[in-house]
Amino acid sequence: MKKIVDPQRIEDKSFKIIEGLLADLNLPKEQKEVVKRVIHATVDLDYARGLIFHPCAIEAGLAALRTGKNIVTDVNMVKVGIRREILSGFGGAVACLINDQEVVQSSSQSGYTRAAISMRKAHQLMDGGIVAIGNAPTALFEVCDLVRKGKARPALIIGVPVGFVGAAESKKELITLPVPFITNQGGKGGSSVAVAIVNALLKMTEVKGE
Amino acid sequence: MKKIVDPQRIEDKSFKIIEGLLADLNLPKEQKEVVKRVIHATVDLDYARGLIFHPCAIEAGLAALRTGKNIVTDVNMVKVGIRREILSGFGGAVACLINDQEVVQSSSQSGYTRAAISMRKAHQLMDGGIVAIGNAPTALFEVCDLVRKGKARPALIIGVPVGFVGAAESKKELITLPVPFITNQGGKGGSSVAVAIVNALLKMTEVKGE
Repeated sequence: MKKIVDPQRIEDKSFKIIEGLLADLNLPKEQKEVVKRVIHATVDLDYARGLIFHPCAIEAGLAALRTGKNIVTDVNMVKVGIRREILSGFGGAVACLINDQEVVQSSSQSGYTRAAISMRKAHQLMDGGIVAIGNAPTALFEVCDLVRKGKARPALIIGVPVGFVGAAESKKELITLPVPFITNQGGKGGSSVAVAIVNALLKMTEVKGE
Repeated sequence: MKKIVDPQRIEDKSFKIIEGLLADLNLPKEQKEVVKRVIHATVDLDYARGLIFHPCAIEAGLAALRTGKNIVTDVNMVKVGIRREILSGFGGAVACLINDQEVVQSSSQSGYTRAAISMRKAHQLMDGGIVAIGNAPTALFEVCDLVRKGKARPALIIGVPVGFVGAAESKKELITLPVPFITNQGGKGGSSVAVAIVNALLKMTEVKGE
């Protein structure tokens, strides 16, 4: 068997397969691009109908990326998966404060998760930018709280934490916020899903900018 | 609603739910621990019956960790998710060469994926250690090839790459090797799955060492 080893050919063939699988999915073109990247990263067709987009989500995300705003993530797995070579071309950066000295200390004193406390500490970095949460429901609850209190003003919240405790509930809270979001129903999610959504948007900045 | 914010309570409650869901799953205790961590990380019950263990996989993995052997990963998302505070206590380290200068250069010259070439470069680091592949089928194919040629001698291969092209096929090749493995059927997988398996083993070194 001759294996395909060329990265571009692998990706092209994958997307052809995914497009076949999603032929009947009726979504705006750009939302569908995001869905395709998520399914490419998970091989989980639940995301075909499971992802939920605020109507302005794509537009808000692209504007934030193109104007060099920050991306704040809950965990380092999300941070390192983001294609920073495109982001840094616009002047943007990715911040994850989960291992920040103050955050670690405050977590062990308060009993709150480091992910939640890191959101509080990063609230100013979120201004006009993107928050991408792929792991911790407590981080998403905290961002919702910061937005409600007027302490954080992100342009887009990507909220796909994973788990049996709090993940689904935090997403239900997210979709009531007056802020563009991309999320999904239920407890599924994860770092790979958050990364796929961010990278789909980054890829769109390249195509649409031409 | 009072939210649970304490990380230990969240984890305890999650595992209670997962144990309820897996009550009927008949597996050796340590394999079941791995399955539980994977389901905790994915909320995907396909992994309850989808994971495949070589009979010596757990034993081989624990021995490698306890003797301070390396873990070689295909992507940085896997590397940063591994609980290095336990690993480094045994003297072990995690290596990911995907951004290595030579690897990047050789990839652009040869047309092979960086992930595959990084495995070739890391072959000596694998000696007696663990290879954890959560993303690239081409990396798993390459490791299979290195093992067959006697150029790599890992103690355990965790092979859970994801995708529509090559992922399922690379896993079929893995289970024919004369080396302990943990893998799954089909194209599902991902960095979070690889990380959950490694961290389940790391957690076992703590419990079983007492």
